[in-house]
Amino acid sequence: MISRKAKIGKNFEVGHYTVIEDGVVIGNNVKVGNHVVIKKGSIIGDNVVIQDFTKLGQLPTSNNNIANTPNKNLGRLFIENNVKIGCNCIIYQGSLISNGVLIGDFASVRENVKVGMESIIGRNSMVENDTTIGENVTIQTSSYVTANMIIEDYVFIGPCFSSSNDKYMGEGNYQLKGPVLKYGAKIGNNASLLPGVIIGEKAVVGAGAVVTKDVPNNIIVVGNPATSL
Amino acid sequence: MISRKAKIGKNFEVGHYTVIEDGVVIGNNVKVGNHVVIKKGSIIGDNVVIQDFTKLGQLPTSNNNIANTPNKNLGRLFIENNVKIGCNCIIYQGSLISNGVLIGDFASVRENVKVGMESIIGRNSMVENDTTIGENVTIQTSSYVTANMIIEDYVFIGPCFSSSNDKYMGEGNYQLKGPVLKYGAKIGNNASLLPGVIIGEKAVVGAGAVVTKDVPNNIIVVGNPATSL
Amino acid sequence: MISRKAKIGKNFEVGHYTVIEDGVVIGNNVKVGNHVVIKKGSIIGDNVVIQDFTKLGQLPTSNNNIANTPNKNLGRLFIENNVKIGCNCIIYQGSLISNGVLIGDFASVRENVKVGMESIIGRNSMVENDTTIGENVTIQTSSYVTANMIIEDYVFIGPCFSSSNDKYMGEGNYQLKGPVLKYGAKIGNNASLLPGVIIGEKAVVGAGAVVTKDVPNNIIVVGNPATSL
Repeated sequence: MISRKAKIGKNFEVGHYTVIEDGVVIGNNVKVGNHVVIKKGSIIGDNVVIQDFTKLGQLPTSNNNIANTPNKNLGRLFIENNVKIGCNCIIYQGSLISNGVLIGDFASVRENVKVGMESIIGRNSMVENDTTIGENVTIQTSSYVTANMIIEDYVFIGPCFSSSNDKYMGEGNYQLKGPVLKYGAKIGNNASLLPGVIIGEKAVVGAGAVVTKDVPNNIIVVGNPATSL
Repeated sequence: MISRKAKIGKNFEVGHYTVIEDGVVIGNNVKVGNHVVIKKGSIIGDNVVIQDFTKLGQLPTSNNNIANTPNKNLGRLFIENNVKIGCNCIIYQGSLISNGVLIGDFASVRENVKVGMESIIGRNSMVENDTTIGENVTIQTSSYVTANMIIEDYVFIGPCFSSSNDKYMGEGNYQLKGPVLKYGAKIGNNASLLPGVIIGEKAVVGAGAVVTKDVPNNIIVVGNPATSL
Repeated sequence: MISRKAKIGKNFEVGHYTVIEDGVVIGNNVKVGNHVVIKKGSIIGDNVVIQDFTKLGQLPTSNNNIANTPNKNLGRLFIENNVKIGCNCIIYQGSLISNGVLIGDFASVRENVKVGMESIIGRNSMVENDTTIGENVTIQTSSYVTANMIIEDYVFIGPCFSSSNDKYMGEGNYQLKGPVLKYGAKIGNNASLLPGVIIGEKAVVGAGAVVTKDVPNNIIVVGNPATSL
């Protein structure tokens, strides 16, 4: 069910049972799998691969208990050239996926996120809204990147990473504050970051560490609570 | 492929390639996305939103190594009014999703679960069978709620929560015993609860804490093993 | 959209909007749900059940930052008799799923994996490439099994398990080395294993433990870092 009002480039390949809505723009040499849904307002560059069961251009939703009502006045979703998106992914409106990014199966990127060039969002990883991810960042499988985080270039995040941004755990209308990961920081598997902590440049957080305060540049921390080696 | 033997209310909107089986009952003003599957026996109220790739009315399955063979003699799945269900969700038969609940993308609720009014099941969270969740509960993204848990009203669970119910780790036919979270308890991100622990009213479990014994009302615990602050 | 060049056995049941490509081989008494995708080269035995939104025969992908370029010269995917696969699963080419295995909803198995007879891959669990899983192994919900692991027979892994194989966290072309879980080892929920650790026969790793060095046979370890009880 591909709309005639979608604008599609040369050498387009598409599988079965895919839905492309009015006004979608798709570049040249794009391959789209089976059972894909591309919502209106999505802009897709050249040489992009989108695998089966993926949805692009999702809108946020909420109920009465969502403290920060999601902004529905979003820009378009931009998928730049040479991006590869796996199966069963969900990418929201108002985000930018830069040139050469790889997004694994079951991964999701919420609204107003920027993912920089050549970065990797691992399989089954969730990236929440209003987060900025630099270039050449690796986020491995089943990681959780909370809202309002800043992840600088060349950061490496192991599998099963966990982060949070709500110091008062839903108590009220406090400002949410995501962690900041500086240039080249490395985070081990299943590490936990508390709201707003800053991990310094080229600092290393050990596997399973629970980081409750800032980590200076070039320092290694391990344990629960995390302390320097 | 919408069965003529489904009973569907007024102002129904539905996407492409959706399957609705015989005997499904759907209220008024319901919106269903693309590629949705609604199995027979599902009852859906008014003003419900169901997004793409979601399946309602799934049956449990097992193999020779599943100790507790799932009950296949289940009641119907009831989705009450004003419920919102994201993309790629799976909700099993025999469960009750109460008025105003929000279920995020990739979340799943197994059989014989009750989710109380206005609660939130975060994206990519798994809720196992025979668990009871109260009203106004928040379960954030990528959390794991084991079987036979009791979660009372106004509990807050941060992202990447982990719980367990099998003290003997598959050794045999012992009774599974899920944790109990009392009224207003708060659980930090990536905390782990051992089988059967009771978290008291308004108690707080810190991020990354590993809770091996009961936590009294109003107490804060942190660390591995978790101890009071 | 079922290819006429697929070879399909007796008593085949299939739902709506399913795609089966040329050259797929399917045994007798197989049930396939709605919106399933089976890629060419997949071989499926008798009495297999495959639920909705599942994809079989996926190929690996990469971008410029994937250190170990995936092998695309893969063998076929073999699904033996009596296997049950849930909804929204993704199983890659070049793997072997043995007789009687149960794969839960949202689970994924990458390329060149062997899963032994009667084992369980829990819901939302990710199994990476080139890993070997024995017989009668249980891997519970939302667990992460990294690449190049060896899991022997009768191992039990609780929910939210995390493992890793890259000691240098993306620093370069070092050999990846996954953990080894010996016969009958038991791992508690949300435990973390560092690269290459060996968990001895019938050893027990407590919930939330962070295992930084080998654990001898029959020993119980807990804590962060994990030490013997």
